[in-house]
Order: sequence, then structure tokens, then C-alpha cells
Amino acid sequence: MAAQLAAYLADCQRRVDAQLASCLPENPHNPLYQAMRYSLFNGGKRIRPALCYGAAELFGPATAATHRAAAAVEMIHAYSLIHDDLPAMDNDDLRRGKPTCHIAFDEATAILAGDGLQALAFETLADQGEGHGDAPLTLRMVRELASAAGPGGMVGGQAMDLAAVNRALDLPALEAMHNAKTGALITASVQLGALSSGAATAGDLDALRRFSAAIGLAFQVKDDILDVESHTDTLGKRQGADLALNKPTYTSLLGLDGAKAKLAELHRAAGEALLPFGPRAACLAALAGFIVSRDH
Amino acid sequence: MAAQLAAYLADCQRRVDAQLASCLPENPHNPLYQAMRYSLFNGGKRIRPALCYGAAELFGPATAATHRAAAAVEMIHAYSLIHDDLPAMDNDDLRRGKPTCHIAFDEATAILAGDGLQALAFETLADQGEGHGDAPLTLRMVRELASAAGPGGMVGGQAMDLAAVNRALDLPALEAMHNAKTGALITASVQLGALSSGAATAGDLDALRRFSAAIGLAFQVKDDILDVESHTDTLGKRQGADLALNKPTYTSLLGLDGAKAKLAELHRAAGEALLPFGPRAACLAALAGFIVSRDH
Repeated sequence: MAAQLAAYLADCQRRVDAQLASCLPENPHNPLYQAMRYSLFNGGKRIRPALCYGAAELFGPATAATHRAAAAVEMIHAYSLIHDDLPAMDNDDLRRGKPTCHIAFDEATAILAGDGLQALAFETLADQGEGHGDAPLTLRMVRELASAAGPGGMVGGQAMDLAAVNRALDLPALEAMHNAKTGALITASVQLGALSSGAATAGDLDALRRFSAAIGLAFQVKDDILDVESHTDTLGKRQGADLALNKPTYTSLLGLDGAKAKLAELHRAAGEALLPFGPRAACLAALAGFIVSRDH
Repeated sequence: MAAQLAAYLADCQRRVDAQLASCLPENPHNPLYQAMRYSLFNGGKRIRPALCYGAAELFGPATAATHRAAAAVEMIHAYSLIHDDLPAMDNDDLRRGKPTCHIAFDEATAILAGDGLQALAFETLADQGEGHGDAPLTLRMVRELASAAGPGGMVGGQAMDLAAVNRALDLPALEAMHNAKTGALITASVQLGALSSGAATAGDLDALRRFSAAIGLAFQVKDDILDVESHTDTLGKRQGADLALNKPTYTSLLGLDGAKAKLAELHRAAGEALLPFGPRAACLAALAGFIVSRDH
């Protein structure tokens, strides 16, 4: 399965990268475009696009709408990393072992590159309605992505995260923060993929919402475990950074063993949510397995 | 006319503020929402919403789609001001005589408030297609706004502006910068208003594009003139700030008299573009007059 999953991830990466490259062609004399491309093509694993493709392919082959949705969620993710890394935010100078955007360029360019990627995400997603394509469905995808990215989702979660430094969060508050900060965009990736097929029922979308809620949280629990267990070389960012900032984590609240038990429970819940889809859900199940077992 | 225009502006402000308040209700315990509301309700003149209403009302009464479009363009404008004022960008601590967002809150909250307003703009605009509403048209409005806000529009213009510090730009380069930085969103405000009516022809949209290109540039030429002529008290920001940064301006390239002649020529071109609409265009014409004759 590991080899099959690696091949599936590579295939998703190839497909979304082709879409991203067509949305943001090279523009060597423009530092803004260079910064946007630097952050978009930085060796990311493309987990969110893979979830988008995996959800779409429950219902049939990926469509043009799927490619655009996969590119749009990755642009939102890339913009959020650029802004999260800024000195006024997490102040990280390394990401995946490379200088962050504001180090490689400058802070103003990094702010604008993030802003530009967010706008481009919506432009890319909304491009589907012209001529062919289902306009009401595309509009629903725009709303889903905007809601996931905005103050009730990712941006709101990041604000909660910053407010949590040096504060004692309990487990429900920690969960609410992560559901917003990382869960909302993971959920949107899966929903947009399913919607892009044009064939998902309300029941399908509900089941996929349960799946993505579980893996979204699992993603963060795993991050916290890795933050304690990993070395800087493997993770590409400073080890124990959250601990140093005195941020609450699953490992600090539950202990390392408690966090691992929580991760296993979330993995089980994710698998259960996929049961109605039967063997068609093998790729999504493998992605869930990857999220809980990755070593960086 | 001055009293009529003031009444029209006040009416547009009342309408867009009602829409904005419903999109972003008070949330007193959430600093992110407070920062977003602080920047959105800061006494701005709501010129872009007024242009949106003025364009819609060429074709009939404003619709729900018009209110949403007016709110969306104002959210994009408000987000851009928050990010432009940041220390890494223009480093302004006053806007309209009040502390800028990152001074009143903090820098991280200001970055996130801007990010959240951009997402909320697209969520607000895309909300039109549910049930009633014309989905293909709404999608076209989303594309128009995203394209105006992104790297080919406002964000790209801001990047050009930052790169222009201490560099000698010629007139075409200065014009390209302003067309992107402020012109694109003004054009989008007018286009979205016209589109929201559901009754604008391709010819109407072209004429309005000529109108908004002229007033967009006029807006900036007037800003440069005011920057030289005004006092800090009236303008609410430090006088001659662009000059201090050694940024190219219309007054530095054309002289004060040359800039005034340019402004008059743009005003004439804007009026000419409105001729096909006859007396229905009185509000848009008055807004153009306001842009070229305002004293702050």
C-alpha cells in the first residue's frame, strides 16, 4: 500500500502542479510572481489537493472543476503558510528546510504574495462557470472555500492560536482552535472535490464531512506528536517550537501516550465515515493512514 | 448639486453599512472581528460602494446583488488599507486621523483582519446565487473582483508601488502602477454594480470601463495634488509622505499645474464615457466631480 499511496500522491502532485503552473506562469522579472511561485512550488506534499482528488474520484474521473478546486485549496494553504511565518506571527525563518518567503524575498513582498495567492484561489475556482460547467455548483464551491478560509475558519483559527500563547487552553478550546485553523480547509478540500464531481448526494457530503473532521484533527494531533519526537533535520523546522512558545498542544494536555491514543481513535472514526463508499474509498483511506503515520 | 451628491453619498453609505453590518455582526469578545469591524467602520466615504450603486442604478433599482457587491468591494478596499499601513509596507500609524489597525490592535491581528476581510468579500459576493439570483452572472462578478484584487490588479499595483521607492518612474510606468493599484478595484466596483442589475449590455460595460479608467486615474492624480497642497489636519495623514519616501507622483513628474491639467482632462474623458446613458448617469457624473474636486 505504501508504494501505491506514494504513486497516488505523486500523480495528484503532478496534476495539481500542472494546474497551478497554468494559473501562475513564470514571470522572471516580477518579484511578486516569483514570491508567489517560490511559496507555491516549494516541495509541499499536496495533501489537500490529494484529498480533493480522492473525494472527486469516489464519484468518477476528476474533471476540469476538480483540477481547479485542487489548485485553489493549495493556493489558500500556501498563502496561509506565508502569512503564518511572518515575524509578527510565528516568526519562522525556515519551512521545509528552505528560507521562508519573507526571508527569501522581503516582508512586504511576502504579505502581498499571500494576499495575491488568496485572490488567485478564488479567481481560479470561479473560472469554472464559463461556457461548460455548472454555475450554481461552482458558486457553492466558492462559498465553501471562502467560508473555510475566513474569520469563521482558517483565519479565525490562526487568531485563536496566537491568542493561546502563554494561556492554558482546555481540550475543547484546543479542538475548536484546530478545527478552525487546519480542519476547515481540509474539510473544504474534501467537500470541493466531492462537489466537483457533480454527483455527490447530501448524504455523501455529510459522510465526507465526518471523515474530514476526523483527519483534520488527526493531522494536528500528529503534528504535536512529531513536534515532540522529531529532530529538526527531519521536520525542517525547529523542534519543540510550540513548547518553547508555551502553546498548548495535544501532547502537553494528554501526554505523549494520550495523544497517540487520541490519534488512533480519530483514525478509526475516519475509516468508519468512509464505510458507505466501500472499496472506492481506498485512496482516501490510504491518505488518512498517511496522515497518522507520516514521520514529518 | 453638492447637497444632492452629499445626500446620495449618505444614502449609499447607509445601504452598504447595513449590508456590511449583517455580514460582520458585532462580536465583542473576539479581537479578530473587532479589528475587522474597526477598519470597516472607520468613517470611510464609501466611494467604491457609491460607484457600485451608481452603476447599478443606470439600469434600475439596486438589487440584493448590488448590496452584496457594494459590501464586497468595500471589504477588499478595507483589507488593502490595513495591509498597506503595516510597518513592512507604508508604515502609517494614522488613517483618517485615527490609529491604524496594527496600532489599535497589533500587527498579527491586523494581518489576519485583512486576510479575513478578503475571504469575507468573496463569501459575501458568492452568496447571491442561492435560490434566487443568477448564478452565471454572480460567478462572473466573483471572477471580476478576484482578478481586480489579485496579482494582475490591486496587489500587483501595490508591489509596483513599493518597488518604485527611490526609483525614477516615467509617466507610462506611473500610470500602469496606479491603474493596477487603485484603478482595478474602482473599475470592478463599477462593473459589479452594472452586472448586478442583470441588464447591462456588452456596450454598456465597455462604456463604463472607459468611465472608471478615467476616474480611477483621476482619483490618484487628485491624491497627489492633495498630498502637496493639503495640511495634515485635513488629510488625516502626514503631508508630503510620498515626497518624503521619494516616490514618483503626478505632481513630481508633471508639476502642480501639469497635474491639474491632467485631472481636468480625465474628468472630461469620464463625462464623455457617460454620454450614452444620458440623464440617468447624473449620479455617476456627480461622483466623478466629487473625486476631482474633493479637499481630502
